[in-house]
Amino acid sequence: MKGFFHLLSSRQFKELLLDFQPVGTEDVSLDSALCRVAAEDIHAPEDLPPFSRSTMDGFAVRARDCFGASESEPSLLSVIGDIRMGTVPEGLAIGPGQAARIWTGGMLPPGADAVVMLEYVREIAPGVIETFRAVAPGENVIEKGQDCQADALVVRAGSRLRPQELGVLAGLGITEVRVRKRPLVAIISTGDELVPIEQSPSPGKIRDINSTTLSALAQEDRCGVVRMGIVDDSLDHMLNACAQALDKGADVVLVSGGSSVGNRDFTLRVFESIAGCRVLAHGVAVRPGKPTLLARTGNRALFGLPGHVASAMVVYQVFVRYLLSVLQGTDPEKGSLRIMAQCAEPFPSATGREDYVRVALDRSAFETGGSGITCPAARPVHGKSGLISTLVKSDGLLVIPRDSEGLHRGEYAEVIIFQ
Amino acid sequence: MKGFFHLLSSRQFKELLLDFQPVGTEDVSLDSALCRVAAEDIHAPEDLPPFSRSTMDGFAVRARDCFGASESEPSLLSVIGDIRMGTVPEGLAIGPGQAARIWTGGMLPPGADAVVMLEYVREIAPGVIETFRAVAPGENVIEKGQDCQADALVVRAGSRLRPQELGVLAGLGITEVRVRKRPLVAIISTGDELVPIEQSPSPGKIRDINSTTLSALAQEDRCGVVRMGIVDDSLDHMLNACAQALDKGADVVLVSGGSSVGNRDFTLRVFESIAGCRVLAHGVAVRPGKPTLLARTGNRALFGLPGHVASAMVVYQVFVRYLLSVLQGTDPEKGSLRIMAQCAEPFPSATGREDYVRVALDRSAFETGGSGITCPAARPVHGKSGLISTLVKSDGLLVIPRDSEGLHRGEYAEVIIFQ
Repeated sequence: MKGFFHLLSSRQFKELLLDFQPVGTEDVSLDSALCRVAAEDIHAPEDLPPFSRSTMDGFAVRARDCFGASESEPSLLSVIGDIRMGTVPEGLAIGPGQAARIWTGGMLPPGADAVVMLEYVREIAPGVIETFRAVAPGENVIEKGQDCQADALVVRAGSRLRPQELGVLAGLGITEVRVRKRPLVAIISTGDELVPIEQSPSPGKIRDINSTTLSALAQEDRCGVVRMGIVDDSLDHMLNACAQALDKGADVVLVSGGSSVGNRDFTLRVFESIAGCRVLAHGVAVRPGKPTLLARTGNRALFGLPGHVASAMVVYQVFVRYLLSVLQGTDPEKGSLRIMAQCAEPFPSATGREDYVRVALDRSAFETGGSGITCPAARPVHGKSGLISTLVKSDGLLVIPRDSEGLHRGEYAEVIIFQ
Repeated sequence: MKGFFHLLSSRQFKELLLDFQPVGTEDVSLDSALCRVAAEDIHAPEDLPPFSRSTMDGFAVRARDCFGASESEPSLLSVIGDIRMGTVPEGLAIGPGQAARIWTGGMLPPGADAVVMLEYVREIAPGVIETFRAVAPGENVIEKGQDCQADALVVRAGSRLRPQELGVLAGLGITEVRVRKRPLVAIISTGDELVPIEQSPSPGKIRDINSTTLSALAQEDRCGVVRMGIVDDSLDHMLNACAQALDKGADVVLVSGGSSVGNRDFTLRVFESIAGCRVLAHGVAVRPGKPTLLARTGNRALFGLPGHVASAMVVYQVFVRYLLSVLQGTDPEKGSLRIMAQCAEPFPSATGREDYVRVALDRSAFETGGSGITCPAARPVHGKSGLISTLVKSDGLLVIPRDSEGLHRGEYAEVIIFQ
């Protein structure tokens, strides 16, 4: 009676996902580009900074004039000017034995190649200073183009734009950036027993949790979300809901419900009935999440997720998020943050499947810092995959590889961190 | 000439931040509560699930009727009903030797305490089945209240609401939640040499990077952002900009620019000139970030951040983010994700200050998984703190504690991960 006739490995399943193409692009202003993915390589149109700048308050000098300067043998320099912030030191050029007052961010005058900090300078007469500290050429200076040179690649296509990437673009005057569109994720909950969360369920019925959790996960991934609501177990209604979701432009359709064989076969029939839709996977060798279905029409994916809330969330974190990275043209292996943890208890498993165990992390060991530092300890959160409370108690998913029979206490493992 | 007359330790600086009060609260719908912080404890108004449910397709049974069942000695049961999804099994009660057909999510009928999976059952005559697998009481069943019981604490005040917290609230029919308001962060860039990023800087001027990077960081932290633009180095203009920011309701004002002694003293004078404003810190023993200023008026904080872009970002990640957690009533130690990494090179430091070194992480070691798993290797990204490109190349900040003289190659360290 087992319906799992062909389980793919996690790797095989991901290979199917890697086969999808990135979605289209759009141009957005820098202000709204945070966390978006660059759609093309971005090169510097000019040098950053556009001129050599001081990084300190002090005196612009020729470094060779201060070689060997010390408290006992200071170098003597004549001050020939004061470089005001944001201005060009016009006509000013530093010759041998000369210096000019400069402030942090000020433009280095011709002839100067270093800045002596104010702290290491004494004014001994009006217009005459002595410096009692040597400087190397380039010291306390950011040279023209040192941050990036004109034509240099500053942001690679597929990079997620963090504050610092936006910063370098801002510095270069790039105020608009071509990014991948946000994938649109449609969410359908199925089951005659489900009622919307606003309703008080009559006996035998229960509120639809998956629409909330899956929407929130897609929001975390900064996707657009279309909630299609609850659809009863009717082939026509389900087909209609999927068709509507695709009409609305969904790149990914998540159908949850049907972790059981009967319901799963039902979702399978729905996917098979969509014109042009091909079912690519009838299950995957992971736990939880085994009955996951994957179908494809054009460049859009339809997932049949388990109905149990924890299973649906695990499949989302492991596979849906992976696809969302592929659709945005970014490295899917970096879609989730993975850290190393140490097993606080034995984690049993069986070979032939990948296990994703809900774990709580004890990070207190981190407080010690320095050489006394240790790894966070991972403790399994026990409970059936229908229990949402197990996820509330968890910090992440500990991964037990396919060919492992389990992990011993003290062994190291990889944990996918909940964001 | 050194102006750093009194440096606080990082710990002392954080203690000043811990002294701020959480901001006010607001009620938001569950749909828009993701990543917000619960302002009060939330208790379950009812049991979840509200009735005992099957987690499998199969037959609802009395576990004791199947004790010892096996392939060679199956238990014989008569099927007295079929429990439709989302309905109450009215009048149906499982007596000795009886069973009822049930589907995943179906309501367990009175008398039954377990579900035998379909796979372990054979129909041997109409209305008669044999099961060849024993079940324990509670097996394949989620009991009434097993996810959470009425009155149980489900979300603690100060918790950040993740998809799973929203899920448990959805399941309980809690569609609105009281959360902390988003702190409002005002951003002021100072410096006569700065021009807005849309402008082509004339010689000696440079585009304002800090407004972009600090806004993006505050956006990452899901705060409201008010950009006050660039203010020139005039006491009146600066005072006016700070007053406007506070008028707009800013909880945190970030003034960047002035990492140098002169500028720093200028920002200090501005803060001291604001009515009711007290300067709490004149510097902090961290690198980069030493010249950081902290002032307070009422429950609002004003930071004087270094002008160098990398320094300003580090101070944001280490201290501003900490305060934003405090203002939202959540654990500030969890505001940043910290992982363990191994030093790929020696990291020199000096005692008496905390060092935050920009590092690139090599995660490839993670690919091996299982017992072969290793820690990511941290490699310093060298470069002056005025260079934004150093942050583009970095994955995080490696922390060298105050009393360490540096870390050896191979030593473990804590890394604050860039989000």
